[in-house]
Amino acid sequence: MPSKKIPIAILGATGAVGQRMIQLLADHPWFEIAALTGSDRTVGRPYGELVRWVLDDAPPPEIARMIVQPSEQVADVALALSALPTDAAVAIEPLWAERVAVCSNASTYRMTPDVPLIIPEVNPGHLALLDHQRAERGWKGCLITNPNCSTIGIVMALKPLHDAFGVATVHAATLQAISGAGYPGVASLDILDNIVPNIANGGEEAKIETEPLKLLGEVSESRVREAQIGISAQVTRVPVIDGHTALLSIGFARKPTPEEAIAALADFAAPPEVRGLPSAPARPVIVRAEADRPQPRRDRDAGKGMSASVGRVRPCNLLDLRMVVLSHNTIRGAAGGALLNAELLASSGIVS
Amino acid sequence: MPSKKIPIAILGATGAVGQRMIQLLADHPWFEIAALTGSDRTVGRPYGELVRWVLDDAPPPEIARMIVQPSEQVADVALALSALPTDAAVAIEPLWAERVAVCSNASTYRMTPDVPLIIPEVNPGHLALLDHQRAERGWKGCLITNPNCSTIGIVMALKPLHDAFGVATVHAATLQAISGAGYPGVASLDILDNIVPNIANGGEEAKIETEPLKLLGEVSESRVREAQIGISAQVTRVPVIDGHTALLSIGFARKPTPEEAIAALADFAAPPEVRGLPSAPARPVIVRAEADRPQPRRDRDAGKGMSASVGRVRPCNLLDLRMVVLSHNTIRGAAGGALLNAELLASSGIVS
Amino acid sequence: MPSKKIPIAILGATGAVGQRMIQLLADHPWFEIAALTGSDRTVGRPYGELVRWVLDDAPPPEIARMIVQPSEQVADVALALSALPTDAAVAIEPLWAERVAVCSNASTYRMTPDVPLIIPEVNPGHLALLDHQRAERGWKGCLITNPNCSTIGIVMALKPLHDAFGVATVHAATLQAISGAGYPGVASLDILDNIVPNIANGGEEAKIETEPLKLLGEVSESRVREAQIGISAQVTRVPVIDGHTALLSIGFARKPTPEEAIAALADFAAPPEVRGLPSAPARPVIVRAEADRPQPRRDRDAGKGMSASVGRVRPCNLLDLRMVVLSHNTIRGAAGGALLNAELLASSGIVS
Amino acid sequence: MPSKKIPIAILGATGAVGQRMIQLLADHPWFEIAALTGSDRTVGRPYGELVRWVLDDAPPPEIARMIVQPSEQVADVALALSALPTDAAVAIEPLWAERVAVCSNASTYRMTPDVPLIIPEVNPGHLALLDHQRAERGWKGCLITNPNCSTIGIVMALKPLHDAFGVATVHAATLQAISGAGYPGVASLDILDNIVPNIANGGEEAKIETEPLKLLGEVSESRVREAQIGISAQVTRVPVIDGHTALLSIGFARKPTPEEAIAALADFAAPPEVRGLPSAPARPVIVRAEADRPQPRRDRDAGKGMSASVGRVRPCNLLDLRMVVLSHNTIRGAAGGALLNAELLASSGIVS
Repeated sequence: MPSKKIPIAILGATGAVGQRMIQLLADHPWFEIAALTGSDRTVGRPYGELVRWVLDDAPPPEIARMIVQPSEQVADVALALSALPTDAAVAIEPLWAERVAVCSNASTYRMTPDVPLIIPEVNPGHLALLDHQRAERGWKGCLITNPNCSTIGIVMALKPLHDAFGVATVHAATLQAISGAGYPGVASLDILDNIVPNIANGGEEAKIETEPLKLLGEVSESRVREAQIGISAQVTRVPVIDGHTALLSIGFARKPTPEEAIAALADFAAPPEVRGLPSAPARPVIVRAEADRPQPRRDRDAGKGMSASVGRVRPCNLLDLRMVVLSHNTIRGAAGGALLNAELLASSGIVS
Repeated sequence: MPSKKIPIAILGATGAVGQRMIQLLADHPWFEIAALTGSDRTVGRPYGELVRWVLDDAPPPEIARMIVQPSEQVADVALALSALPTDAAVAIEPLWAERVAVCSNASTYRMTPDVPLIIPEVNPGHLALLDHQRAERGWKGCLITNPNCSTIGIVMALKPLHDAFGVATVHAATLQAISGAGYPGVASLDILDNIVPNIANGGEEAKIETEPLKLLGEVSESRVREAQIGISAQVTRVPVIDGHTALLSIGFARKPTPEEAIAALADFAAPPEVRGLPSAPARPVIVRAEADRPQPRRDRDAGKGMSASVGRVRPCNLLDLRMVVLSHNTIRGAAGGALLNAELLASSGIVS
Repeated sequence: MPSKKIPIAILGATGAVGQRMIQLLADHPWFEIAALTGSDRTVGRPYGELVRWVLDDAPPPEIARMIVQPSEQVADVALALSALPTDAAVAIEPLWAERVAVCSNASTYRMTPDVPLIIPEVNPGHLALLDHQRAERGWKGCLITNPNCSTIGIVMALKPLHDAFGVATVHAATLQAISGAGYPGVASLDILDNIVPNIANGGEEAKIETEPLKLLGEVSESRVREAQIGISAQVTRVPVIDGHTALLSIGFARKPTPEEAIAALADFAAPPEVRGLPSAPARPVIVRAEADRPQPRRDRDAGKGMSASVGRVRPCNLLDLRMVVLSHNTIRGAAGGALLNAELLASSGIVS
Repeated sequence: MPSKKIPIAILGATGAVGQRMIQLLADHPWFEIAALTGSDRTVGRPYGELVRWVLDDAPPPEIARMIVQPSEQVADVALALSALPTDAAVAIEPLWAERVAVCSNASTYRMTPDVPLIIPEVNPGHLALLDHQRAERGWKGCLITNPNCSTIGIVMALKPLHDAFGVATVHAATLQAISGAGYPGVASLDILDNIVPNIANGGEEAKIETEPLKLLGEVSESRVREAQIGISAQVTRVPVIDGHTALLSIGFARKPTPEEAIAALADFAAPPEVRGLPSAPARPVIVRAEADRPQPRRDRDAGKGMSASVGRVRPCNLLDLRMVVLSHNTIRGAAGGALLNAELLASSGIVS
């Protein structure tokens, strides 16, 4: 879309999510990486020398040669993807947002009232908060965020159901991949032949219980009115590399049949302004008919890791319907989610 | 208790559960293995030559030398543990029950009205059905069963809560170990770096939704009046060797605080007639205070694999309480469950 | 290269290797799948209904609709890729070879004197055996084979070293992925948290000890004079999905320094007639400088699964050099190897 | 043996090896834990509060209540087991050895001439070095060490073969469990569905190539004359929890048949003074006849984790014999090895 590529910075480029951002930006049609930032330990050194690359193969040679810059020093770019840790994001992301459009994967500002929490297929209209954000904060740039890696797949499945039938209550149990904890993250002695039934001491569950309410809410008078949905989440860490699985039991305002729910899921399409974005999958939600799908290893790469897969849509003994949702936690759930947000900003004219 | 050891047969001795029965019966104070049965392919051959031993080490030498007998030929024993497949159990278990006390792990007759479904710590009184069973069927022996490998841990946790607060509704999500599928069972290509979100095409979920109602029911006039509890189960297979994890959200008639629930769980004791059984654990339920327990690899062997471990007892956003339950699926959930039932029969004077 | 696509059959299309062949042939520039064959159980049914797809996602829709044909019935195609089991290949492959150029992954005829055992980058000249094969057997088609899944990576590394320094002796220890055993193949209970130190009861080791001698041999007077190399192999099965690792200790006629060996490996190029084949990787061998590479998960997809990766080239206390070789066992080591052979036949004018 | 229990200290008690020492010392007939030491971060706090327990269950309650002491402060004990890191051991172990008999698992002093490197079944006579050690260093205590976790199993298999046939050369390839790296040790992202073909950047291989020469050497004039054996090792890290596998190819001075080698291995017995030690297994080496054993998960606990298991004894194409050796790396290969050494010291009268 842009006539020449937009220079982009990656904040916190050495971690697992930062690496995914670099991988996804290779040969990107709109963006090119112009700056990488890292912690004090890494500043001034070539990226390729210091990174502990956890993905396949190795970083692209031209990225490997780039010198890591301090995160505190705002680069001369139009856009930044932030893979900063939660605490580092507190001060650094607003600093960049004064001049740069920041798309953050950090949880720090997700629930802040004037910061849009965005899934482009779900609530692109929440970008309307940015006028208020810029006016109040005096920023030329802006700050938007993408949700938690489990929230995102769940909400992509809930969105068409909520629009059609009104989601009222959700029991969610998740089986989350180790890559969600970054690197070194989960010790192998903790997870081989094992399950860990908690993540971040309850913090992960709190995110799954609150972020969907903002994502499915309505913007009104410069703020989001949260959706009225009750959510209970129980999370586990499982020995899977990539791909978070969620088992959902859902109660609706108007109870659909499984067939009606499947039709709503299968027909779910992104708004027109989102469909053509380079990282947008052809179908945001893929409904699988097999009795034992979706599965992380076989379905996580659907839509190049940007689609959510849904299966086993069936009645529930207690609420209305049950289903299984699977999405790639470091692509759709982190780096790819932030990148799609950046593409939305670029195509919306917010970044130029 | 018995002055000399009671001869016991193992039906379906070559499978994974049969192997566990053999392992648990090594040096048993009351029982000694007198007969092993198997399918046509195995009859007439020494056990050690034909078995594909899936547990540690190897079968005991004296068992390895035993000649496998046809399952259709009732041996001259007082007790039989049945690890028969569901369909083989249909005809064979009643055949043995004419003369022998059969403790079955098969699901075939679990929900049959005159067949006790027993967890000794939970409902030993259901053995009262046996008078009726013997009278109606003209059996000198009898048939009792133990529940499904996931049901058993869940019900051990629910029992003290039900007694104290009245369980009304349960959402259960399970993460089940591969050994639950027997051998060869789950193909490694299906489960390494993967999750399979279904077992037995919904059949496993049906068991978890129905068996607890019988187990927590009351015997009245030679039948069980089932408990009035609504249960919704979602099951998954995970890359764990042994140990099924269940994530529970529970609604009660009288809502307890987490502390009250923990006290009820920790105080749960087997009835006096069960406490001294050789395979009964010191504590049926072990409450763990750590934020990330129970875990299959670290907690499955609690009470020599016969205790259920419970952790993360906490409020639920939608129902009353949430918690995590872990139990060893091939010991407490299968071979050990059947063996404890056999011990209960022996100590009750039903077998002599 | 061909003006219109060459119709191709896949023999034994339902197994794990047959599935990979289908996956690799999606959008192939030269070939299109015209027939799928399977065992009696599968004949006459749509492929998509009967296959237990073990790869990502699902078979392409147009392939899923194809009706499986009996392997005994030779289709009207120019080329066939055979993923038949060893024993089925005995009769069926010669039947097809009467009219069709058969590229087989089966071990059945690999060591048969008039059957070329081919790695295109290593010994394309062995196709010269085909004149003799066709003349002797009266075939209009032909039969060529690719080596064992571990042999292939090892020989790709040995070839440039043998040419430059003369390989004399090789100690090889392999760590082989579960996909090498097909589906259902290795039971998860046998391999989770475990190693199995044998494959095919010694048969796998025999292949690694003999096939390289033919591959590195010279064609002379319509037969292959085997290379004079002593090889000792010890194989293991490890809990890895794809990618066989080989630890080599090598003795040479002329001992190279590690640097000389690395140079020979890095400079290794396919003969000109092989370089442009659609499935030929840009570099047959990729030398990795990191101290802890190659690794199966990070390097198996190098060259789209068609490159062998070599690392840790260093002196040996007993022989001359040690190194680690990694290659993708179901792509380069099976389906992709057979496909590259088919491309070689097509580009050589042997198939038209 | 002692009339009352000997007080013992554990140096570096919080790491994975220290935890195993605590686990193995529960209910030990001779020893009781009197002191635990740890790093600055842990000093002064109750062990149970600070330890990240990586084994099953939890530390014994009486140990959990003990206050961790600084490693630099020598406790009033007769014996110490050291699980110190290599660098911490440099200064701390000699400090303790002035007054206390130290049995160290650290590699720091293993190859120091006056420090016995001991496997009780293999070379208990090397304790003769202690007279010299005490005289030269003026110590009332002493320092002895146990070998590397892979070395120990290999040497237990080599010892009877060396005595009978003279081992001349050994090619060793190892597949080592994750617990060998301690905790947190290997990141799960590095090892799930993966192999890492190096440990400690070559350091692990150097230990396997040198320690056996000292272990199989002869004490003469207050020093060890090393055995003349050429060893080449290639190591890998594999996704196995406990149990190191070694694939050996061995050349002998007098070539045995496989049957002769098996007989020598099966007949291997500890010297009389070692046989009765509490942690000594009934058989140091267990020969397995199955074609696919030993396997880590099924054989690591042989002899309560103190036996080495050997299988697949067969001819080698290049050297004389090949075989597979398996031993438990954190029991026999670390904590149990140190404990058995301590028992040897106690029974030898060196500690009282």
